[in-house]
Amino acid sequence: MNPDLVTALGGHVWALDYGSVLVFALTGALVASRAQLDIIGFLFLAALTAVGGGTVRDMVLGRTPVFWVVQPELILTAAAAAIFVYWTAPMLESRYRWLLWLDAIALAVAVPAGFDVALINGNGPIILVICGIITGTMGGLMRDVVGNEVPLVLKSGELYLTCAFGGAVVALILVSLGVPRPLALIGCGATTFLMRAGTLIWGWSLPVYRPRPPRDRG
Amino acid sequence: MNPDLVTALGGHVWALDYGSVLVFALTGALVASRAQLDIIGFLFLAALTAVGGGTVRDMVLGRTPVFWVVQPELILTAAAAAIFVYWTAPMLESRYRWLLWLDAIALAVAVPAGFDVALINGNGPIILVICGIITGTMGGLMRDVVGNEVPLVLKSGELYLTCAFGGAVVALILVSLGVPRPLALIGCGATTFLMRAGTLIWGWSLPVYRPRPPRDRG
Amino acid sequence: MNPDLVTALGGHVWALDYGSVLVFALTGALVASRAQLDIIGFLFLAALTAVGGGTVRDMVLGRTPVFWVVQPELILTAAAAAIFVYWTAPMLESRYRWLLWLDAIALAVAVPAGFDVALINGNGPIILVICGIITGTMGGLMRDVVGNEVPLVLKSGELYLTCAFGGAVVALILVSLGVPRPLALIGCGATTFLMRAGTLIWGWSLPVYRPRPPRDRG
Repeated sequence: MNPDLVTALGGHVWALDYGSVLVFALTGALVASRAQLDIIGFLFLAALTAVGGGTVRDMVLGRTPVFWVVQPELILTAAAAAIFVYWTAPMLESRYRWLLWLDAIALAVAVPAGFDVALINGNGPIILVICGIITGTMGGLMRDVVGNEVPLVLKSGELYLTCAFGGAVVALILVSLGVPRPLALIGCGATTFLMRAGTLIWGWSLPVYRPRPPRDRG
Repeated sequence: MNPDLVTALGGHVWALDYGSVLVFALTGALVASRAQLDIIGFLFLAALTAVGGGTVRDMVLGRTPVFWVVQPELILTAAAAAIFVYWTAPMLESRYRWLLWLDAIALAVAVPAGFDVALINGNGPIILVICGIITGTMGGLMRDVVGNEVPLVLKSGELYLTCAFGGAVVALILVSLGVPRPLALIGCGATTFLMRAGTLIWGWSLPVYRPRPPRDRG
Repeated sequence: MNPDLVTALGGHVWALDYGSVLVFALTGALVASRAQLDIIGFLFLAALTAVGGGTVRDMVLGRTPVFWVVQPELILTAAAAAIFVYWTAPMLESRYRWLLWLDAIALAVAVPAGFDVALINGNGPIILVICGIITGTMGGLMRDVVGNEVPLVLKSGELYLTCAFGGAVVALILVSLGVPRPLALIGCGATTFLMRAGTLIWGWSLPVYRPRPPRDRG
């Protein structure tokens, strides 16, 4: 990777981190609302969702203490989102629609955020893509497991991982072509969001593996 | 934080670690007994519960190798607890009551232990509180997920997270007021235990979020 | 541990890592096939299973960045295995039998791999055994939880943990007796595989804890 691109706009990644923490926290609080938790449960699920993906990314890369230990304000951001949703969710017509679309936005912010961190960290192409996917999907997976939703990541026909994968690959191609880093990250987020929106609106899907009816034991 | 407080009684944290490992291991073995596992299953669940919370704390803070790799005797402590429960659990009248109360004691030891580690590590107030909560709750959460119990952390009306949160906030206030560190940790543990005991005995609870019947799809 | 043994054949561990990544990836893809996921789901489950155990081991030991960030080719190996299974699984008579036996092979490769990494890392006997068990079992546990199978690790009567434990203890004894490291690792893998094969073929088991019918609430 061109080091000029990498060092330019070093603060950029923090804006992405704040954005993905904020929007993921909103989705975590919405799941807490659907699970009818108390206010501490809202705070817990919002914070877990907000920082879960980036925490796994940082631990795998060895960037410890992890990002929110270095920037504890991110936890306050997530807490504010939780309290906001605690008061406003009763007014929403369909919490699940809000959840799906906010989650799509959060995914489209977190994939470039994760990609960017690995880029600044000096990692190679495979790890760049994987860090984008991990940062985008792990927080939502933890949210759904803990909050007792069917995980979006695994729901067949949701193309969730595929959107994260597509966005990260676009970022990789753009960076390799010498496109300036901010533009590459915007391309990454836009690709992720448009693929996900297509799935939500038109039900796009990949062929599912189903060669014959299951007949094994177990 | 006052560095004199921090350096005083540095060995104190090990006593707390041993205590929380021991009592959490007993709860893990009780869950193994309820799940009718074999002796290796007892050892596994006891060790997982005993060190799970502190392991997450250490990995997040970047204190690696984690505490039980540095002090492998802690694993032997957990193993001894597992073997003890394997032989004595058949004599218990109600394993679930023992589980709840031992878990309350373990929580009341592990929250100050986690708080103290972060304090010695030089972290700020938000991270102190979060480390107390993580250390107190993650081991039990892993125990319940793996052992197929309904997680106490998430059971509505259990106020589990709230007790950990309350204890950690009390520790933070006491340390900020200049109270000697051992006293602050005792105040933290006592607050956690009394809140949890109140929940178990009198069914204390926070208002649950329930503004209307659920009607979303999903 | 004899440092001569430890430094001899330093590259050996990479062969074990490649082997366990490859075979575990095949099992992950088989679970994806049983869960009827799309190709991205195959890639995800194969990669998660392949590197899950070693990732936990490395994070606990503080060996970060973890092994597959240092050697991203391992991810490509897992991806190739996923694509291979995606095309060939429809031809299998019983996917579940293949899953059980490939998993037994993967376990018998991963336990010595994990043991060896901790040995090279200079850890003591308890940590050596635990690293063997973690590396052998955590990837399969993640695979089963995410892929919605009953976890082999916890299935009563499967002796899964016991086989990993037995293999790791044999490795420890052989290394302590001064047996050359490659031979000790072969002994470890053979013990693990034979114990597991005995369980699968003859239904070997440990006495299950069942002193009386369950009667607690909860």
